[in-house]
Amino acid sequence: MEIVSDVRSHGGRQLVVKHASAATGTDMTFSIFLPPQAEGGGKLPVIWYLSGLTCTHANVTEKGEYRAACAEHGLIFVAPDTSPRGEGVPDDHSGSYDFGLGAGFYVDATQEPFAKNYRMWTYVTEELPALVAAEFPADMGRQGITGHSMGGHGALTVALSHPGRFSSVSTFAPIVAPSQVPWGEKALGGYLGDEPEQWRQHDSVALIEDGARLDELLVDVGTADPFLNTELKPELLRRACEDAGIDLQLNLREGYDHSYYFISTFMSAHLAWHAERLC
Amino acid sequence: MEIVSDVRSHGGRQLVVKHASAATGTDMTFSIFLPPQAEGGGKLPVIWYLSGLTCTHANVTEKGEYRAACAEHGLIFVAPDTSPRGEGVPDDHSGSYDFGLGAGFYVDATQEPFAKNYRMWTYVTEELPALVAAEFPADMGRQGITGHSMGGHGALTVALSHPGRFSSVSTFAPIVAPSQVPWGEKALGGYLGDEPEQWRQHDSVALIEDGARLDELLVDVGTADPFLNTELKPELLRRACEDAGIDLQLNLREGYDHSYYFISTFMSAHLAWHAERLC
Repeated sequence: MEIVSDVRSHGGRQLVVKHASAATGTDMTFSIFLPPQAEGGGKLPVIWYLSGLTCTHANVTEKGEYRAACAEHGLIFVAPDTSPRGEGVPDDHSGSYDFGLGAGFYVDATQEPFAKNYRMWTYVTEELPALVAAEFPADMGRQGITGHSMGGHGALTVALSHPGRFSSVSTFAPIVAPSQVPWGEKALGGYLGDEPEQWRQHDSVALIEDGARLDELLVDVGTADPFLNTELKPELLRRACEDAGIDLQLNLREGYDHSYYFISTFMSAHLAWHAERLC
Repeated sequence: MEIVSDVRSHGGRQLVVKHASAATGTDMTFSIFLPPQAEGGGKLPVIWYLSGLTCTHANVTEKGEYRAACAEHGLIFVAPDTSPRGEGVPDDHSGSYDFGLGAGFYVDATQEPFAKNYRMWTYVTEELPALVAAEFPADMGRQGITGHSMGGHGALTVALSHPGRFSSVSTFAPIVAPSQVPWGEKALGGYLGDEPEQWRQHDSVALIEDGARLDELLVDVGTADPFLNTELKPELLRRACEDAGIDLQLNLREGYDHSYYFISTFMSAHLAWHAERLC
C-alpha cells in the first residue's frame, strides 16, 4: 500500500492510496477521508461511495463536498476507482465512455478479453473492504454505502447481495434496472455475455423481484437529469420497492441535473441520514 | 454575454459566462453563483473571489465548497479567470506556471508584448463589476472580496486601492509583498518593468506603508503551506497592519497546505464573516 497523498482538510486527513490488487491484477487507486475523530484512537463508521461512468476516485474527492459532513459526524469516506487501469488492461474498441476504462459496472466480467482484469465486484465487496479494515480505523460493523449513477447501481446491487452488511444505503441518480436500459445492456452484455441469470444478479430491480431486501433506502434524482427517462428510470425502483415492502424515500429534485453540482447539493443530507443509522 | 452553462446547485444557479472583454481584447470567462434568494427579485451582496496561479474560474467553482454558505447567507459569488487567454495572447517564453497564461497577477501590464492583453486590473476593478452590476441582481453597495495566493494579492491590492468599495476583505494564503518574493519579482518585473513606483501600487505591504487602509482583514494560511516562508510571508502583512492600526485576524492553520483542501475547509467561515458585514 502506497500513500500517494495525505492532505489536511476539514480537520481530518484526505488520503489517496495506491495498492496492487489481486482481484484486478492491476494497481488500484482509491481515496479515503479520515475525519478528525480518527485521531481519538477508536474505530469509526465507514461510508463507501461508488462513482459513475468516466470517474476515478478523484471526481467525488474534489467535487463531492463530503468532508464537512464527515467531519461533523465522524464518518470515514472511501471512494474506489470505477475500473482497472494500466498497461495491458483492455478497453472498449471504440473508446466509448460507457464501457471499459472508467466503466467497470461493479461486476466480475466473464467475457474475454475483460475477464482477467474487470473484477470490480470482487474488488469492492472483498478486497478493498479487507484492506480498509486492516489499515484504517474502520468499524466494519457500521458500514453505509452510496454511489452515483453507475455507482448507484453498484451500491444497490452490493447492498442487496450482502444482507446485513450495510446499516444504511442511499444513492444519487442510480441506474436501477441495467437489464432494461442502453448503458446496462451494453455493459452487462459485454462483461457477462448472454446470461440472463448473471444479469439478474447485477440488476437491482431484478434482485428485489427475486427476493433480495433492504429495510430502507434513500434516493435522490434530479428532474433535469438528461438520463432520467432513458437510463435511470427511478419509477422501476419505486414499483419494485412498493411490491417488496422496502421503505424507499425517493426525492425528485426539481431542476437538478446529473452532475456533481447536484450530488454536492444533497451530499450533506445523505451523510446525515447515514450518520443517523451508523453513529 | 454568452451563458456557457447554467446548472442548479444548492438551491441556486451556478453559471459560467463568456463575454468579449474590451479591457483584455479577448473573450473572458467567469463563473457566478446566484443563491436561491436571487429569485426573490431584490439585489444581493456580492463576493469577488480572485484565484491563484494556474487557475481559471473552474478551480474554485468545482472545489471551493462555497455554494452551501452562499445559499445560507444569500451571497452572489463571482470568480473571474486569472489572465487573458486565446489565440494571439502572449505567454511566458519558457511556458512556466507563474507568468503569462493563468498568471496575470491582477495588474495592467505596461511591458511588451503583454501590454495589449494583460489588463487584469482594469478587468476585475472596472469592466467585470460593471457587467455584473448590469446583468445580475448584485447590490454594488454591498461588496466583499477574497482570493487565494496570487488572488489573495489581487484581493488585497484591489481593496486597498478602492477605499470604501468593499465592506469586507479576506484572503486565503495571500502573496502580501510581491516586491519581496520570487513570484512577485518575476511578475511585476515582467508586466510592469523596472518601475519601483508601479510595483508599490501592486504590493499590499507597500500600499499600507504608503498610507492605504482597511478597517479590518481576515487571513487564513496553512502552516504546512510549501510557499509560506518563500512567497507568502504573512509576517510582513502582520507587521504592516500593526504599524498601520489595521485590525488583522491572521489564522495560522496547523498542518494545512496551499490547496483547495485548505481553502474549502475555511471557505464557509470566511463567507460567514463576510455575511456578518454585508447582510
